Amino acid sequence: MRTLYHHWLCPFSRKVRIALGEKKLPFELVVESVWEKRPEFIALNPANDVPVLVDPDGWVLADSNAIVEYLDEGVAEPPLLGADPLVRAEVRRLVGWFDGKFNAEVTINLVGEKVVKRQMGYSGGPDSNAVRAGFAHLRAHLDYLAKLADERRWLAGDAFSLADIAAAAHLSVVDYVGDIPWDSHPAVKDWYARVKSRPSFRPLLADQLPGVRPPPHYADLDF
Amino acid sequence: MRTLYHHWLCPFSRKVRIALGEKKLPFELVVESVWEKRPEFIALNPANDVPVLVDPDGWVLADSNAIVEYLDEGVAEPPLLGADPLVRAEVRRLVGWFDGKFNAEVTINLVGEKVVKRQMGYSGGPDSNAVRAGFAHLRAHLDYLAKLADERRWLAGDAFSLADIAAAAHLSVVDYVGDIPWDSHPAVKDWYARVKSRPSFRPLLADQLPGVRPPPHYADLDF
Repeated sequence: MRTLYHHWLCPFSRKVRIALGEKKLPFELVVESVWEKRPEFIALNPANDVPVLVDPDGWVLADSNAIVEYLDEGVAEPPLLGADPLVRAEVRRLVGWFDGKFNAEVTINLVGEKVVKRQMGYSGGPDSNAVRAGFAHLRAHLDYLAKLADERRWLAGDAFSLADIAAAAHLSVVDYVGDIPWDSHPAVKDWYARVKSRPSFRPLLADQLPGVRPPPHYADLDF
Repeated sequence: MRTLYHHWLCPFSRKVRIALGEKKLPFELVVESVWEKRPEFIALNPANDVPVLVDPDGWVLADSNAIVEYLDEGVAEPPLLGADPLVRAEVRRLVGWFDGKFNAEVTINLVGEKVVKRQMGYSGGPDSNAVRAGFAHLRAHLDYLAKLADERRWLAGDAFSLADIAAAAHLSVVDYVGDIPWDSHPAVKDWYARVKSRPSFRPLLADQLPGVRPPPHYADLDF
């Protein structure tokens, strides 16, 4: 059996969970609270971050991109990057966009401030400047997503790909804290509803963080 | 001809330059100062960051990982990721380590504070807390690099790879500002000397930033 060390609202962990689901690879989840700096976990991954995947042969894989590329190389169906070199480059550009730019500008400012800081035991509320910046950036990102969703069936082109997975992983954690103005971006909402209805995605919607409830629409496929 | 939009001390641009050199693909460099927010450049890459590669057919590629993976898929020799799936995962883990963790903890704190802020027109000197944090993290990263360099011929294993390229790209910009204590980490120095002597790497050492001179050892292959 595979073991995935993860944390509930970590978008990088969610990306790997969805990819494992798409590839129909069974796995068990272990929650790792990296701020506890557990020596046994640091021995697995000296970067001390999640996700970490231990595969059935005992190989330890760290870094969410390394893991999803490994899964895509090892299990052909369904392809998550495509076959055309330019499409693969577009998928990877968008994965970099969400895991780099969106994460730094939106996810950390909203989910980091509202939930992760509390989980880590910081006292005091969210930094209001960070939250304000997060909302401003979120609007710009939703506009960009709307443009992609208008022009293409899936974010990187005709096929569902890692670009959709990375984007939906980030949106899902921001949605958990109730911060996505879905109604102002109907094309994005339509795209996200299609991702939400995939069997690989549904288990994430059942996650319930102790002490932090998602809004009622969070797990609703018809929101 | 290929065109690479880059900036001199951008480690992500350097990673692509070295990869192009390893693959023996000719290219011309165009300096892009992204803080000027040039509309023509944003039309090429809405993320408004470098590197961006325009290939001979006019295709525009953005995101340094998307670019190097595209180059490695398109030109077989020399392979920059290896053939073994676990080695490829290790290469990508280390690329993520340097482009993510090292960049955030060291490159931005040292090169960002000492050079990039000035280039962007900020008045005032470097933030001394950031510089102090950068040095503290740098020591930890050099210790980790020393461990890898002791155990392996190249950072990810027996073969030179994108892991060496990403790591050397970051170290080279930190070295440009004179901040690497080479003598306290001889195994890292030996590894870096081997990277430095590669034909793909030498052009970087000739870069001279207006108004910022590198230390004398910077371009010296026998430092």
